[in-house]
Amino acid sequence: MDFKSLQPGAAYFYYPRPLCVVGVWDSKRERANFVPVAWAGPLASRPPLFGVSISPKTHSHQLLLQAGEFSLSFLPWQDVELVAKLGTVSGRDVDKVAAFALELAESEVITAPFLANAYVAAECKVSERHSFGDQTLFVGEILRVAARDAVFAPDGTLRVEAMAPVLYLGANRYLTVDAKTLVTLPVAED
Amino acid sequence: MDFKSLQPGAAYFYYPRPLCVVGVWDSKRERANFVPVAWAGPLASRPPLFGVSISPKTHSHQLLLQAGEFSLSFLPWQDVELVAKLGTVSGRDVDKVAAFALELAESEVITAPFLANAYVAAECKVSERHSFGDQTLFVGEILRVAARDAVFAPDGTLRVEAMAPVLYLGANRYLTVDAKTLVTLPVAED
Repeated sequence: MDFKSLQPGAAYFYYPRPLCVVGVWDSKRERANFVPVAWAGPLASRPPLFGVSISPKTHSHQLLLQAGEFSLSFLPWQDVELVAKLGTVSGRDVDKVAAFALELAESEVITAPFLANAYVAAECKVSERHSFGDQTLFVGEILRVAARDAVFAPDGTLRVEAMAPVLYLGANRYLTVDAKTLVTLPVAED
Repeated sequence: MDFKSLQPGAAYFYYPRPLCVVGVWDSKRERANFVPVAWAGPLASRPPLFGVSISPKTHSHQLLLQAGEFSLSFLPWQDVELVAKLGTVSGRDVDKVAAFALELAESEVITAPFLANAYVAAECKVSERHSFGDQTLFVGEILRVAARDAVFAPDGTLRVEAMAPVLYLGANRYLTVDAKTLVTLPVAED
């Protein structure tokens, strides 16, 4: 076999992944912070749970512990530079809403806002958290999903021909999907 | 704001995601089972941990509990039909290796094989598991990554112009990336 061994960590083999923007209030609910996260994804359907992995070293980690809730914003491909920029500064030092002139949308179920540029957003309440190595997995129960009109097909899938998502490839690389490759194939349970 | 509320579960807002194929031995190590999983991803860097969410109703769940280890195979876009087919039958009823004429590659650190068609594979030992709603998160420590030559760039990112990954969009839809959209942007810590 023509395989060679790599150190785990030497290859971003689990990318590309959608990059979502996690929104959290500070303790006084004066300033909302927004951070792009690629290590995030669904954990269960019933109840609907979504996990976000965050390093304890970050400002966002401290905010999440205090707030106990977070929003998720998924931005279209044309906003990729904004999404990347949100990861270049810390909310400890910078009010990102002011610095990047972020337009906010009000949540209905939680208090933290989401980004008005999002094509879809979710409102989550932290139900538990677990320490895994150098990261904390914050498990959020999805209480509401807010979507722009006609972004999802009747079967619930993203209409990628109309709305291209931001995918993160690792390091400092980003890309989106090729809607022309979309195929429909049989699917079932294991 | 022109957002409308959707039931969580009505929209696959967290897709597309890479579809990996999880490989596990049966208890007698006579038959390896392979199942495509989209609810899977990295959980930590130190140590390198990778989580796989599996329903307790599935055959794979039972196998994972017994085996305590699993392989991950990432197949190229030209194998999308094979990857989808692996999800249409249960290893309870069918020997997928025989039924789909799967070519296997030997692991070096664990005993479960991976798929020889993979462009990258990982060998994982289950270090813990957690029950989240209707799913179990199996946390695997990544002990080895095996990659085909030149699949990853020096910065560790997938060379998407040469190797297009299989992405799952939800329902029965699959697609891949558009390598022409690849951009390099600043990135830093929160």
